Amino acid sequence: MKSTSRTIVFISDGTGITAETLGNGLLSQFEGIEFRHLRFPFTDSLDKADACVQRLGEIRQQDGQRALVIMTVMDEKISAKLRCADALFLDLFEAFISPLEHELGQRSTHSVGRSHGQESREYARRIAAMNFALAHDDGISAADLKNADVILVGVSRSGKTPTSLYLSLQFGLKAANYPLIPEDFERDCLPDSLLPFRDKLFGLTIAPEQLHRIREERRPHSHYASLANCRHEVAAAESLMRRSGIAWFDMTARSIEEMAVHLLQAFNKKRETSVNSQPHTGDSSCIRT
Amino acid sequence: MKSTSRTIVFISDGTGITAETLGNGLLSQFEGIEFRHLRFPFTDSLDKADACVQRLGEIRQQDGQRALVIMTVMDEKISAKLRCADALFLDLFEAFISPLEHELGQRSTHSVGRSHGQESREYARRIAAMNFALAHDDGISAADLKNADVILVGVSRSGKTPTSLYLSLQFGLKAANYPLIPEDFERDCLPDSLLPFRDKLFGLTIAPEQLHRIREERRPHSHYASLANCRHEVAAAESLMRRSGIAWFDMTARSIEEMAVHLLQAFNKKRETSVNSQPHTGDSSCIRT
Repeated sequence: MKSTSRTIVFISDGTGITAETLGNGLLSQFEGIEFRHLRFPFTDSLDKADACVQRLGEIRQQDGQRALVIMTVMDEKISAKLRCADALFLDLFEAFISPLEHELGQRSTHSVGRSHGQESREYARRIAAMNFALAHDDGISAADLKNADVILVGVSRSGKTPTSLYLSLQFGLKAANYPLIPEDFERDCLPDSLLPFRDKLFGLTIAPEQLHRIREERRPHSHYASLANCRHEVAAAESLMRRSGIAWFDMTARSIEEMAVHLLQAFNKKRETSVNSQPHTGDSSCIRT
Repeated sequence: MKSTSRTIVFISDGTGITAETLGNGLLSQFEGIEFRHLRFPFTDSLDKADACVQRLGEIRQQDGQRALVIMTVMDEKISAKLRCADALFLDLFEAFISPLEHELGQRSTHSVGRSHGQESREYARRIAAMNFALAHDDGISAADLKNADVILVGVSRSGKTPTSLYLSLQFGLKAANYPLIPEDFERDCLPDSLLPFRDKLFGLTIAPEQLHRIREERRPHSHYASLANCRHEVAAAESLMRRSGIAWFDMTARSIEEMAVHLLQAFNKKRETSVNSQPHTGDSSCIRT
């Protein structure tokens, strides 16, 4: 009978993050098998490949079965060296480079780490976006909001901060976030500092029960965390967002990655629309004169 | 002659982030071609697949060439529907699920979004780690440092904050960070609050010229940003880290993703070592009595 425990090895000439993310998605499709993970990032020399081959041999002996290798290695000599080991190799580049070469009618450069060079401007944009997100977390500063790409609003602990940071780090969007607090609900009006930027606002909401659990961890047995208060705040926030014409998303069953992609889609759609239409003047009922 | 502009389409039943990351790595291997990117995340119904097929048809007409599709779609009906379009399909799951089924001797479940359910504890760990990183950014608080997995030290703007956030969001490590400032260099001693946690400390350093450029953007023409001061601070920080026995990494030519993976490796190695050896008592020359 085959063992229900297997070793999976991620080998990359870079960080290996892509290989590992894809690998986790693939392995989640197989039930009842326990996978032990090993990572060999930055495998960018024949010496390092040799060390991997040796380790794969040890695994073969220890497990009594060969390892599953998910790899992203561009250099053909290094990947040929790796294949000396007795393992199942799932090679992300090999599987797709060849059909792409055929389709595009040219040879690939097979060079390591090219994506970083190409991305350097993109990279600077992501770091600048992250600094912006940190400087505009939780309404810390209303200065410079005109440079925000999106401004997330929602009750405390609805997921604004992790979503803002992910939007900035992954997609380079300058994401500010601003809490909706009891004073806003009493006035039934958005904070004044947000009114000029209504077309950048997106709302986050969350089921009161989940909000209650999250807040209890932070401030146990407080009015702030009580289910009754969470119900009141979420209902008031949704009512305020509805009246203000703010599109909102429900965080309850979503990860920050999923939420970030939904927001990116909404941002892109809004941007496309605003190019082809009159500027949105918004509902001016809250604007003080 | 073939056009040097092609449309690349990322289709996923989830966020599509894995498909896009891998796709960018693949496309960077082809020079002189301009790629236009389109994303279709959350393609988890036949209706949405139909909409994709239609859009792929439009691209075929507009470009005069078929689109390149990189897809991660688990549901076989949805992926069969997508393949009705005239496009080049690079299917991440199809390419690897079949060899995995053969190797593991069982059928995959072909179910969408399984990875999230499986990862829910892991997900909570990442969010908790991110809250920790934010609460312990830039030495804001020395409380609770005993719960940190790693504490990054380095001069201001050496990359501690983005690296800490990435370590927490991607790998669920509780990463605090603490600036090394002129007062520390004058005393030639680590901040007192860090001394009990010497075995968690990792250093970041950076070329003075690059630090100068980064600081100039923040505070132009200041003493803080001057090349002379950057040279002085970097040399003093490296000397202090060397004397204190802190391993450090050079941020100069590395992205935050690369740095985070290097730190993760160092953290894992240290943890393995500390299980099998005496606790490290460190150099006590700075401890005040």
